[in-house]
Amino acid sequence: MSELINKLELAKNASYTIKNLSQAEKNRVLESMASMILDNKEYIKNENKTDVLNARENGMKESMIDRLVLNDERIDSIVSGIRKVISLTDPVGEITSMWERPNGIRIGRKRVPIGVIGIIYEARPNVTVDAAVLCLKTSNVTVLKGGKEAIKTNIALVKIMQEALKKEGLPENAVSIIEDTQRETTIEFMKQNNYLDVLIPRGGQGLIKAVVENATVPVIETGTGNCHVYIDKYYDKEKAINITINGKVQRPSVCNALESIVVHKDVAEEFLPVICELLKEKNVIIKGCQKTLEIVDDIEKASEEDFYKEYNDLIISVKVVDNIDDAIMHINKCSTGHSETIITENYTNAEKFLNEVDSACVYVNASTRFTDGFEFGFGAEIGISTQKLHARGPLGLNELTTNKYVIYGNGQVRG
Amino acid sequence: MSELINKLELAKNASYTIKNLSQAEKNRVLESMASMILDNKEYIKNENKTDVLNARENGMKESMIDRLVLNDERIDSIVSGIRKVISLTDPVGEITSMWERPNGIRIGRKRVPIGVIGIIYEARPNVTVDAAVLCLKTSNVTVLKGGKEAIKTNIALVKIMQEALKKEGLPENAVSIIEDTQRETTIEFMKQNNYLDVLIPRGGQGLIKAVVENATVPVIETGTGNCHVYIDKYYDKEKAINITINGKVQRPSVCNALESIVVHKDVAEEFLPVICELLKEKNVIIKGCQKTLEIVDDIEKASEEDFYKEYNDLIISVKVVDNIDDAIMHINKCSTGHSETIITENYTNAEKFLNEVDSACVYVNASTRFTDGFEFGFGAEIGISTQKLHARGPLGLNELTTNKYVIYGNGQVRG
Repeated sequence: MSELINKLELAKNASYTIKNLSQAEKNRVLESMASMILDNKEYIKNENKTDVLNARENGMKESMIDRLVLNDERIDSIVSGIRKVISLTDPVGEITSMWERPNGIRIGRKRVPIGVIGIIYEARPNVTVDAAVLCLKTSNVTVLKGGKEAIKTNIALVKIMQEALKKEGLPENAVSIIEDTQRETTIEFMKQNNYLDVLIPRGGQGLIKAVVENATVPVIETGTGNCHVYIDKYYDKEKAINITINGKVQRPSVCNALESIVVHKDVAEEFLPVICELLKEKNVIIKGCQKTLEIVDDIEKASEEDFYKEYNDLIISVKVVDNIDDAIMHINKCSTGHSETIITENYTNAEKFLNEVDSACVYVNASTRFTDGFEFGFGAEIGISTQKLHARGPLGLNELTTNKYVIYGNGQVRG
Repeated sequence: MSELINKLELAKNASYTIKNLSQAEKNRVLESMASMILDNKEYIKNENKTDVLNARENGMKESMIDRLVLNDERIDSIVSGIRKVISLTDPVGEITSMWERPNGIRIGRKRVPIGVIGIIYEARPNVTVDAAVLCLKTSNVTVLKGGKEAIKTNIALVKIMQEALKKEGLPENAVSIIEDTQRETTIEFMKQNNYLDVLIPRGGQGLIKAVVENATVPVIETGTGNCHVYIDKYYDKEKAINITINGKVQRPSVCNALESIVVHKDVAEEFLPVICELLKEKNVIIKGCQKTLEIVDDIEKASEEDFYKEYNDLIISVKVVDNIDDAIMHINKCSTGHSETIITENYTNAEKFLNEVDSACVYVNASTRFTDGFEFGFGAEIGISTQKLHARGPLGLNELTTNKYVIYGNGQVRG
């Protein structure tokens, strides 16, 4: 039997035990994982060094290598992440509603774990622990399929988590990793409907596209964010400046960063020169539509494709529109459905924007950078969904559960 | 441009209008649909006659032809179905929760339509109207892809619904049907992620499998039910008999019908002869495990595969087990995750079964035949989900919505 099928079978078997653990049992094993990771820092760093060395030899870019490196500080932050998850409320078992039917049966809708969750990701070893821990907290079993660049680090981290599971008398296959990093194995992994209940890809656009196109297992698509700020005719200048700068500059590489400014024509001449000057001071490259070029000097012309791009970089596109309807139409056309914000003091336009923009998170007078499980108060997140099935926006612990109906009868049959 | 892409583009455009309709507007057009279907009964029956004629010529089984036929009574029942949907509460727009973060932003979780829903189905023309009406009630646009056997009937029904939309000044492409019934077009349809937000297949196992394997659009898998009754050691004989007979005999062709009896060894000798006698009286074929054969005469031997089968017919398998743990293990292994019931007077076993059986609907002392949107009190259903993503069990109006976060700020940026 292949490693893949063997591990999936063990994972599925483990799921029958894991789904019935109490909160106390789960928190106990999570604490064991935290302390055992701390105890094995040197081992982890050593394995990570080999990965980094190999990556450099294979010519990986330094910005990517930075994501791969685990030092003391990052390991500490992984561990404090686990302890934060321990402190969160466990949603599993909650009866979210219960009602009685005329024939006397009582129907309860109960939160239950999803089962076995496959995580496909790239070269960020922190995902290994984050994902496994969030899944275990919600009584799910995790099967990891990480990028080959981080494989030694990932295997080390999984080994430690498995030791913790064993120590607590639990099936070690509650967390496992497919060590075979060939592409064909990844594709095969995506088609294992008999073992996997859900696949969550975490990574760049290419990875997510490959999963959506090849998977037969249901997928929660996470990620790409072509986020917009719309500067309404009735905008507050200070809010507009702060929110635009924060959205673009504070952390340009993340999915909730701003990628495009849409501005009402009546305020374009007032707003654009100011914001473009400030953005340039922060080394942001500006790509404007024709009308923008007529107002601001020394910027690049945006192509049609620019308006569809997630730059993840210090680049921003600018589009001048005639009215709020055109702004909403443009955003609904070009956006990836992640996060958009309107800057306005006008009540009707605020409500219109909230209602008509078809994205996971729609803001009035606040930065799109808040689209995040921690900022939303979920305490953690496993990604940000841009699809409509299952859940949209930041995915917290609730979103790692599904529902089950439990029905109490006393002999009822259907007439 | 192909018919497929053309219609999908029109559907997507229509969705921007449809998602903003008020409840009153939606109910008005639904009422127009109801009355216009009644007004056009003769036209519908005529088109249906052609379909039925063609189906007979092509050698379709009479049981299948029965599903295809539309007579006065069935058209009346479609119309009363629409009026029932009108009377239901519209879930769209509900803010299911709202909270304030320490920085003062207020975050609301709002129910919004999914967008454009593709329905792939077989030769049941009632699905055409049912699906379109449920989607419209929840501000969704429907693109139908029905089987070729019912194509004339389906086109007629869609034409009438489109007339009603036009009459109310709404985009007629809120409901449309792909008239090209070639298999390649159906496959292409499943991959239109740019236009379709969700696919719901409605039909037999073959259809659902084809959709799961080929679709890149997110799918809500509906349907197949290999449902079990477990007769516990502490069972009540009368309840066990009534629920078993009801589950198997009342309507054997549906997905919530019983397909298998699992019985505790200590009561097998008391229960099996009685139930098998009664089932035989109702013309049910019984396929038993080795132990069953030792207790009951004149029944067939079940193969291993029998325990995985959804017969949808007057056939039932019987398995004797040593204890409740074995019963649960057997059910979790063989079931399709639809509906299972335990017959017991023992509190601990009832709770154990509810907790450990991993199916969408788990019952104590009631018939699995209750797994149904109407019986659950949802007023309607678009199918019964057996997957864990999005929703499990009967899919009512709530399940045709997704969530969106609406965030109210006053200038907040991320620190």
